[in-house]
Amino acid sequence: MNTSRSPLPVRVVALSGGVGGARLAAGLQQILAAGHLTVVVNTGDDFEHWGLTICPDLDTVLYNLAGIHNPETGWGRADESFQVLEEMERYGGEVWFRLGDRDLALHLRRTEWLRQGLSLTEITDRLRHMWAVPSRILPMCNEPVRTLVHTDEGDLPFQHYFVRRRCEPTLVALSFVGGEQARPTPDVLEALAEADLIVFGPSNPYVSLDPILSVPGMRAAIQRAPGPKVGVSPIVGGRALKGPAAKMMRELGELISPLTVVDHFGDLLDGFVIDQEDAALADAVILPTLVTDTIMVDGQAQARLAQEVVEFGLSLPVHPQR
Amino acid sequence: MNTSRSPLPVRVVALSGGVGGARLAAGLQQILAAGHLTVVVNTGDDFEHWGLTICPDLDTVLYNLAGIHNPETGWGRADESFQVLEEMERYGGEVWFRLGDRDLALHLRRTEWLRQGLSLTEITDRLRHMWAVPSRILPMCNEPVRTLVHTDEGDLPFQHYFVRRRCEPTLVALSFVGGEQARPTPDVLEALAEADLIVFGPSNPYVSLDPILSVPGMRAAIQRAPGPKVGVSPIVGGRALKGPAAKMMRELGELISPLTVVDHFGDLLDGFVIDQEDAALADAVILPTLVTDTIMVDGQAQARLAQEVVEFGLSLPVHPQR
Repeated sequence: MNTSRSPLPVRVVALSGGVGGARLAAGLQQILAAGHLTVVVNTGDDFEHWGLTICPDLDTVLYNLAGIHNPETGWGRADESFQVLEEMERYGGEVWFRLGDRDLALHLRRTEWLRQGLSLTEITDRLRHMWAVPSRILPMCNEPVRTLVHTDEGDLPFQHYFVRRRCEPTLVALSFVGGEQARPTPDVLEALAEADLIVFGPSNPYVSLDPILSVPGMRAAIQRAPGPKVGVSPIVGGRALKGPAAKMMRELGELISPLTVVDHFGDLLDGFVIDQEDAALADAVILPTLVTDTIMVDGQAQARLAQEVVEFGLSLPVHPQR
Repeated sequence: MNTSRSPLPVRVVALSGGVGGARLAAGLQQILAAGHLTVVVNTGDDFEHWGLTICPDLDTVLYNLAGIHNPETGWGRADESFQVLEEMERYGGEVWFRLGDRDLALHLRRTEWLRQGLSLTEITDRLRHMWAVPSRILPMCNEPVRTLVHTDEGDLPFQHYFVRRRCEPTLVALSFVGGEQARPTPDVLEALAEADLIVFGPSNPYVSLDPILSVPGMRAAIQRAPGPKVGVSPIVGGRALKGPAAKMMRELGELISPLTVVDHFGDLLDGFVIDQEDAALADAVILPTLVTDTIMVDGQAQARLAQEVVEFGLSLPVHPQR
C-alpha cells in the first residue's frame, strides 16, 4: 500500500497518542526513508494491571507501525484470542480491560525487563526491532507519569475513566501525576533537535498530547527545535474522529472545533491541517493552514495525508520568535 | 466414577508432590466424606518464571482434585491453548516451561495476591474454593523453599534440572534453599494432629516428599500425630511410575526398589503399600505391608487404591515408640 513516489529523506518527529496518531505515523513511515521517522509517544495512560505494566499508546503505535494491529479497533492485535482473559474472570480478576493473549505476552515481557532495570526507552526499542519496525518509537520519558482524570464523580486513573467508565463521568480537570519528576529522554531531545519537521498527530489534545508537553523541558525543547511544527486536527466537522476529545471540549466549556486545538497549541505551531469538511474555518485559523481530506480510511489514505502534511510542513516559514 | 460405598467419615492427610500424589489424592477425595481430606503439598519445586510465582505441585493437585487436569500428562489443564507461549517465543522469553493460557491466568492471579500480602495458604484456599474442591489443599509452608539440584554439571534450580534439562545431569545431592527459615503452617500442624490417617503419596521421595519433611518441625509433627502413617511406593517393578525417582536412586547408589523407599521413610511409617508386581519383596519390608495393584489408570483405579490404603492404614497398630 505504498505510494509510487520515492521515500523522502526527511527526518520527521511525530507526537502521538493512540489510534489517530498511530495511523498518521504509519502513513509517515510509508513515505519516509527507513529510519527517518521518530514517534514520541504519550505514556500518561500507562497503568498497572494484573501486576503488569501496560503502555497502551506505545503498543498501539508499535502494532500499527508493525502492521499487526487490529484494523477494526485500531488498537490491539489482529487475530487475537482471549483465553487468559476468559479464565481470569473465573479467578475474580479484573476483566474490564480486555487484554488479548498475544498482547499479554508483550506486557509480561516488558514487565520482566522493567524489573531487570531496563528503561522503557530500551524496552520499546527492543520491541520495535523484534517486529522489524524501521521507525524509532520513543516513550516521552522513562519515569512513570500517570494521567489522573478529575471528574464530577471524583478522581479516576485514566484507564478507569476511559475504558472502565467509557468516559461517562463529566471531565473537570486533568493532572499528570509524577510529571514533575519526569524529563524528556536524551533520545527525545536529540530527535527533536535533528528533526526537519515536527508533527503533532491528530491525537486528543488533553489526554494524549498534553501529557507529552507537560514533561518539564519538553515544550522548551520543541520551541528550540529548528524544524517547522505542524499540527493535524483531531476534530472534524464538530466531532472527534476517535475517542472523547469532543466530549472533553464540551465539558471544559470549549467550542468543539479545530480552532480550539489551534488555540490550545498555537504558540508551538507554525502551521495547521484541517479537514475539508471544515474548509469554512480556514480563514479563522491564525496559522498557515492546509485544508485536505484528513480521514485515514486505509493505508493509502494514511500515506496520502502524511505526504501532504510533510510537503505542507516543509513549506512553512519557521515562526520568527524562535 | 465414584465407588458404590458410602463416603468414609475418616480424616486423612496425604503428603503429595505432583502427578502420582495428586492421583492418589483424587482417589481419596472420591471415597472420603466431603472436607475429610487434606493434602499437604511440596512447594520446593516452585519457581519464578515470566516474573510470576509458579507452584507446579500445588497446581497439579488443584487441577486433579477439581477434575480439570490434562488426563494424558497428569499436570496442566485439559483443553489448554498456548497462544501466549507462542507469542512469548517471538519476544525472546523463556519457553522451555510450557505454560498454557488457562494455567497462566492462575499464575497471574496468584502473583497479584502474593504481592498484595496474602499467604500461599490463603491463596491456595481461595483457588480451591473457586473450583469447588471439597478437600483442603495446603502448601507445606508459606515461606519460599527452593529445591536446588547438585549435579555433575553444577547446581541447577529444580525446574531447570527437571524440565529444561529433562533430568539429564547426574544427581549428586539435593538441598532445600530457604528451608531453615520455613515452618509448617498452623493449618498443616492442625491437620496432622487431627488426622485419623496420614498417607505418604506415591511421590518422588527425594524431590517431592523430602522437601516437605525438611521443613523444621514437620518430621516431629508427623511423629507426634496420633494417627497411623502409611506409605505408598512410587517404585513398581524396578521403575518409577512417573518422573526421575528411579534414575535418582541409581545415581545416589541406591537399589531401585520399594525397599529403598521404606529405608528412606521407615522411621516415620507404620505400614507400607507395594505393587503386586513386587509381591516377592513383601517379606523383606520391615513394616506391615499391603500388596495390591497400585497403578492408577483411571478414576476408578484411584478410588479403589485409596479405599485399600485407607482400610489398610486404619488397621495398623500405631508404632509403639510414639
